[in-house]
Amino acid sequence: MLYTPSETAAIVLQKLRDSRPLVLCLTNNVVQNFTANVLLSAGAAPVMLQHAGECEEILNTCTQALLINTGTLTEQQADIMLTAAKAARAAGVPWVLDPVAAGVLRFRTEFCHKLIAEAPPAMIRGNASEIMALAGEKAAGRGVESANSSSQAVKAAVSLAQRTGAAVLVTGAKDYATDGTNTWMLTNGDPIMERVTGMGCSMGALAGACLAVADSALDAAISTAAIMGLVGERAAHKNTHPGSFATAFLDGLDALMPADLASFTRYNAVE
Amino acid sequence: MLYTPSETAAIVLQKLRDSRPLVLCLTNNVVQNFTANVLLSAGAAPVMLQHAGECEEILNTCTQALLINTGTLTEQQADIMLTAAKAARAAGVPWVLDPVAAGVLRFRTEFCHKLIAEAPPAMIRGNASEIMALAGEKAAGRGVESANSSSQAVKAAVSLAQRTGAAVLVTGAKDYATDGTNTWMLTNGDPIMERVTGMGCSMGALAGACLAVADSALDAAISTAAIMGLVGERAAHKNTHPGSFATAFLDGLDALMPADLASFTRYNAVE
Amino acid sequence: MLYTPSETAAIVLQKLRDSRPLVLCLTNNVVQNFTANVLLSAGAAPVMLQHAGECEEILNTCTQALLINTGTLTEQQADIMLTAAKAARAAGVPWVLDPVAAGVLRFRTEFCHKLIAEAPPAMIRGNASEIMALAGEKAAGRGVESANSSSQAVKAAVSLAQRTGAAVLVTGAKDYATDGTNTWMLTNGDPIMERVTGMGCSMGALAGACLAVADSALDAAISTAAIMGLVGERAAHKNTHPGSFATAFLDGLDALMPADLASFTRYNAVE
Repeated sequence: MLYTPSETAAIVLQKLRDSRPLVLCLTNNVVQNFTANVLLSAGAAPVMLQHAGECEEILNTCTQALLINTGTLTEQQADIMLTAAKAARAAGVPWVLDPVAAGVLRFRTEFCHKLIAEAPPAMIRGNASEIMALAGEKAAGRGVESANSSSQAVKAAVSLAQRTGAAVLVTGAKDYATDGTNTWMLTNGDPIMERVTGMGCSMGALAGACLAVADSALDAAISTAAIMGLVGERAAHKNTHPGSFATAFLDGLDALMPADLASFTRYNAVE
Repeated sequence: MLYTPSETAAIVLQKLRDSRPLVLCLTNNVVQNFTANVLLSAGAAPVMLQHAGECEEILNTCTQALLINTGTLTEQQADIMLTAAKAARAAGVPWVLDPVAAGVLRFRTEFCHKLIAEAPPAMIRGNASEIMALAGEKAAGRGVESANSSSQAVKAAVSLAQRTGAAVLVTGAKDYATDGTNTWMLTNGDPIMERVTGMGCSMGALAGACLAVADSALDAAISTAAIMGLVGERAAHKNTHPGSFATAFLDGLDALMPADLASFTRYNAVE
Repeated sequence: MLYTPSETAAIVLQKLRDSRPLVLCLTNNVVQNFTANVLLSAGAAPVMLQHAGECEEILNTCTQALLINTGTLTEQQADIMLTAAKAARAAGVPWVLDPVAAGVLRFRTEFCHKLIAEAPPAMIRGNASEIMALAGEKAAGRGVESANSSSQAVKAAVSLAQRTGAAVLVTGAKDYATDGTNTWMLTNGDPIMERVTGMGCSMGALAGACLAVADSALDAAISTAAIMGLVGERAAHKNTHPGSFATAFLDGLDALMPADLASFTRYNAVE
């Protein structure tokens, strides 16, 4: 690794702004609007589709990354997602798995395992319970929330990365990014981020945008955590309630400069 | 009833904050994001699913209430909703019916009658036209809006409550909560609330959260009306346009204290 | 044409506020909430449905306009949309086609051609690439974005209007409204509008509301461009980031007076 995590995040954000990657988001119905706005504010471009043929077509033409988020999974959507993941792999388009509520609900848990087996993602982003569940550990989620702290999931993240070849980003009060060999803890952020729906899910979409431009999936995971964390904690300074916080978050993401990341990203190597 | 409506609302809000109930929301596509944010700002937790098996699974494990809202009903979604309502009854999880546009459109009207017959809800929340239609009276809705005032629907609400066993909450310029025996009018609120989409629908979700913690469905209905009304009128004081009003509403819901409800809820018993 | 475009827009907004048309929006999942809020802030009323029978029923009773937007098209939704377009024609309800990403993706491009052939719309609103694609010209879209400027699409717009009988509204840095005989350029607006998801899609819904009250589809197209442009540029004056801009846009739409349009709409006839 040539750069520190803070330098990496600054470089990735600059590249993202320069190339404006198009990210195909196959995500849940609750967060589609917020996710699209997060990508636009970050400097990337979103596209959402619900038709397998159209997904294949766009992945073969003008898409730089794919997000698959299992938040409101249906049988039909699972078929589209599997088709899209395979098409992304074939086209060399990197993809991010956001395994919402994996471990809590059987259908989606099995589907996530199937995706990983048949068309492995470049990155997996989840909360502690989701990552632990995918790594085969006993986890304790409640609905879409983690009942484990992110630090409890570090070993599971490393093992999941080693087994799948994906970078793993565990998010929570502290974020951990690992490729199975190197692991970083990033500690920007604010608790209010958990009180706005779609904050985590849009992080998965931003991870896709970062994947499209970063030198490695680990760099993309580090950059995603750094960007969301720094923007979140800055927006929380002046906005202590969730409605105005969400607005300020989009504003702050738009205003974020690469140099801010270079200066204010807090990180530590994890042994 | 040991407490006044204002005391009841204060107690219910405190319990909601203490226990943070998880509410499964099977609701329309237009309002999913706002509904999730209303639950989070109130202090509850949302989960949205679109798969019958996952609904049954979560209702049998970690869910404290269920909302069914017919706003963008499909045949497929109706099947999932009926399965969920039955699973909720079997699991002892209380559920709220929000019969959007019942009386205006045949498919959903018949479906609401079927739900009430086969898996009766603990609460029904609707505007005047919807409640009158479900009670078998002639109503005059236009799309998702009521063409009747809430006061015109009081008799229908009482009769619907008596027939179904559900508490009924009729919302409008004035709100009425009844269990068929006792009926209360609650008069907080502001007309701007009708100019933000999802304000009524998210009220149904909040009703679910209140049901999860209240001593009775009538207490939950009273508390729902009191919370939405007080937060709405306060947010409207300084925000006279709908964009900033919606943001201020979420902020104000987060800031609301039980003592505010005890002091500022306006109500009257209806003879 | 008796009135200038600025006078026309003022008259149409006043009529819209007076009659509060109900617009049935069959639109994509990403923008449903924002679209509904744009219609409410403008003074119209939204309804969203996902069931063919319910669409027919509401078009035959209380609906003044229909929007069809192909953003997240599925096979099933295409069937519902075709049914709705035919029902609208039969009931004399004018409808707007918003052919999102036509020309980029085959399934929806063919579907748009089919809609135009079998149940022609009163207006087509699209970006330059979409309009050029529907007119049979070579276009260069990327996902949901245009890679052509709106001025490049003027000839295509005129030819599409002549062939289909619909008014065509091409939106971009400059907007062009044509009925195939008369063409107007409207130049209010601000680049930040492209950084908020749903701004273009909600323009299609507003076009429906304008169609419901305007004397001609060209008047409706002119008014739609004038309203969105003036509100957008005003909101951008004090809000330079997309989160607060979106909120200010809804506020400004609510505050907009017909006299503002009469005074501040910028337009030119196109020869």
